[in-house]
Amino acid sequence: MTGIDDLIIVLSKLPGIGRKTATRLSYFLLKEKKVANEISTVIAQVVESVFFCSICGNYTTHDPCSICTDASRDTSILCVIEDPQDLIAIEQTGSFNGQYHILMGALNPIEGVGPENLRIKELINRVNTGSFEEILIATNPTIDGEATNLFLQDILSKFNLKTSRIATGIPIGGNLEYTDKYTLGKAIQRKNYIKNIYE
Amino acid sequence: MTGIDDLIIVLSKLPGIGRKTATRLSYFLLKEKKVANEISTVIAQVVESVFFCSICGNYTTHDPCSICTDASRDTSILCVIEDPQDLIAIEQTGSFNGQYHILMGALNPIEGVGPENLRIKELINRVNTGSFEEILIATNPTIDGEATNLFLQDILSKFNLKTSRIATGIPIGGNLEYTDKYTLGKAIQRKNYIKNIYE
Repeated sequence: MTGIDDLIIVLSKLPGIGRKTATRLSYFLLKEKKVANEISTVIAQVVESVFFCSICGNYTTHDPCSICTDASRDTSILCVIEDPQDLIAIEQTGSFNGQYHILMGALNPIEGVGPENLRIKELINRVNTGSFEEILIATNPTIDGEATNLFLQDILSKFNLKTSRIATGIPIGGNLEYTDKYTLGKAIQRKNYIKNIYE
Repeated sequence: MTGIDDLIIVLSKLPGIGRKTATRLSYFLLKEKKVANEISTVIAQVVESVFFCSICGNYTTHDPCSICTDASRDTSILCVIEDPQDLIAIEQTGSFNGQYHILMGALNPIEGVGPENLRIKELINRVNTGSFEEILIATNPTIDGEATNLFLQDILSKFNLKTSRIATGIPIGGNLEYTDKYTLGKAIQRKNYIKNIYE
């Protein structure tokens, strides 16, 4: 028989959910059986119906996904990101209306993630066959993301197109005093000349 | 088709899970389809197989539950608690080896929870037919829990048995300076004479 303990154990497998939260959630689910059934059904359905877009690599229920088939989007710029979550984050800004390419991770030799484990071959294919004028590399400004950026810049330098990198610096609303020295250092190195902004 | 958004929406119904966490969990589940299927299955099974023990009111997969049928437990003392989670908490202390009675909540006139909504009739039946010598009221030391305590003490005063109330005071490892004045006030009022402890 499947008891509460079994539920607590499986819910503890979720990221950021410890045994205490899993216990709380389990008791909630037993109390709210309607919600529990709904969650169980939707998880099963989503696992069944969601797959990867064959073009950009995003999660989708129809291939190609709604972004890749959106005729109103700019097809001259391609934004390269690590994960599907990054796409959501960028879309929420409203600052980008081009195409996406999801690598499904970043280079990490220690964990055994090499170029062959990422969607880099697919990226080269797209760049070869597409009409892109610019590739915006928006991997995270972390060690892995920067390594991936350098690797991609090296590959893309062989093509006749502009490459750009998402800006790093002090977050809006941030504070110089509490900004870590690496970010602050980069922000000074990559200073923008004021007259350039109005050019 | 059921997409990620549907999953995010249902997961947001969980207590303490906001849209941001629900999004994170949804992407995790899509990445770890094995865990997702496991969670979906276990939730469905638990909802199906877990019900209330007809004696104590705890969640169980067999009736009566393992605590009510445990011959090694003291049948002379009954601990009255609000919720099944409280049973787990008390069991973890190892300080109680008697029987339990779960009320399934506490009196709360504002939210329309009266005595008829709690398992109080069942409690009276158990006290009437059982061999209990003591009833330990372990509802929470909150407004609702205290109201329930007073209500139960009134009812139980008609029976020939001892009633007790779980102690309130400064938590172990706590600090007088940071203890709220109500707790500290109670802790002083309910001081224990030292020689009594060694008696």
